Amino acid sequence: MTEQLVREPDVDVDLVKAWARQAGDVALRYFNRVEGSLKEDRTLVTQADYEIEDLLTGYLRATYPEHGIIGEEGTKEIHGDYVWAIDPLDGTRVFLAGLPVWGISIGLLWRGRPWLGVFYMPLLDDWYYSASPASGAFWNDQPIQCPATDGWDEDSLLCVRSDVHRRYNITFPGITRALGSAAAHLCYVARGNAMAVLLDKPGIWDIAAGAAILQAAGGALRYLAGGEVQMENLLEEGTARNPMLGAHPSLIDRLAHYIQPRTTR
Amino acid sequence: MTEQLVREPDVDVDLVKAWARQAGDVALRYFNRVEGSLKEDRTLVTQADYEIEDLLTGYLRATYPEHGIIGEEGTKEIHGDYVWAIDPLDGTRVFLAGLPVWGISIGLLWRGRPWLGVFYMPLLDDWYYSASPASGAFWNDQPIQCPATDGWDEDSLLCVRSDVHRRYNITFPGITRALGSAAAHLCYVARGNAMAVLLDKPGIWDIAAGAAILQAAGGALRYLAGGEVQMENLLEEGTARNPMLGAHPSLIDRLAHYIQPRTTR
Repeated sequence: MTEQLVREPDVDVDLVKAWARQAGDVALRYFNRVEGSLKEDRTLVTQADYEIEDLLTGYLRATYPEHGIIGEEGTKEIHGDYVWAIDPLDGTRVFLAGLPVWGISIGLLWRGRPWLGVFYMPLLDDWYYSASPASGAFWNDQPIQCPATDGWDEDSLLCVRSDVHRRYNITFPGITRALGSAAAHLCYVARGNAMAVLLDKPGIWDIAAGAAILQAAGGALRYLAGGEVQMENLLEEGTARNPMLGAHPSLIDRLAHYIQPRTTR
Repeated sequence: MTEQLVREPDVDVDLVKAWARQAGDVALRYFNRVEGSLKEDRTLVTQADYEIEDLLTGYLRATYPEHGIIGEEGTKEIHGDYVWAIDPLDGTRVFLAGLPVWGISIGLLWRGRPWLGVFYMPLLDDWYYSASPASGAFWNDQPIQCPATDGWDEDSLLCVRSDVHRRYNITFPGITRALGSAAAHLCYVARGNAMAVLLDKPGIWDIAAGAAILQAAGGALRYLAGGEVQMENLLEEGTARNPMLGAHPSLIDRLAHYIQPRTTR
């Protein structure tokens, strides 16, 4: 691989978006018409997750045979500098509950670093994407930027997981919402709809696209306890061992003080 | 008013739905294109809220001149046995944040009791309604029922307000979500997408439609501290003094034990 290719891989974001739209059509066919089952790790899966993972991995293998792929529903073909990390349905639990915030998450990592991200929410027909770390981030083709602000007030939004009341003590003076999709939460922070997102031990597939979009929009991702997220480790381990926080770099360290993991779980 | 009219008021739910759709079109024109301002009670309002309240009160006055009307944005014309309670935009804060769960809420009370409810979520094109306490409840024209279950597990959903982490100690073994709209939360319980909803001192406009739909679906609404909700008082006072809980009657008393208001606010 030449140095030029490392800087700008020959990846067509419009093609990836077309696949995501097709995956979204599959998801919509199942929405409100499918039951879930529990996987070994106690997370939920549906026929829609499997069908979409098959669809996307098929396209990726045919189009980018030199790239690796890791998917939430079992795909693990890690080789080369570029690895696609896909969550066929990010937000399976809200998808199953008939709630609206879920989507198709397709991220591309270069040597373990988020490079490109596409996240599509079919029910809302809402697009978030970034073509490279330098390209900037987009929402429905409009450039977006993670806003820098001096601080927060009681309307500032921290996105959380739905079991946060059992796992954390949150003293944040603003509000919290668990909308159901880590990728959506990262995109909402990238666009400024939310100020921050708490990710509780996410999988690489949950955050690859969203992290690429957030970082292209000027946002940052760190461990809640401090330190830059080591995405390379996630490729091997799949799921993170520690919680993460995403926000604008000017806020992120101060925000972390408002979130304490509970020692007894 | 004759006894027959008390039992079945001459109200056309399809007409009310047509008004709600028109109101939804107004809301969509403003969505992602309007800023909010703070009212005296520190809640948010937008031009969309005012325009929709004007639209709906105009139709209601012209079509049901003998009925009263109360609206979140200032309308208060209480007379007669029937009073419409409308929230032109339930979920103004999420509407302003560009998030999806908000809608047009139109309820009709008979002598202070929820009679008819229409709730429309324009972005999702999702309908919830009930034509009378006896009519049953509907979601997109399909009958819905609040499911009776024996208990809950870690996937059971309690809908909450976004400031719940500051106002309550929640020990519920399931999950919690603050999606942004009290009316939507009530409808989600009516349909079984959620198990329960905690309402923190709601306004009559927030809950009139949702309570009618929940009760028509077989669900119940009580004060968190116990006792049936006195809607009649709400008509005069507008906003409730105490938190409420909505769920299936077989669960509601046991669920209340998992929610403790904090004494220091």
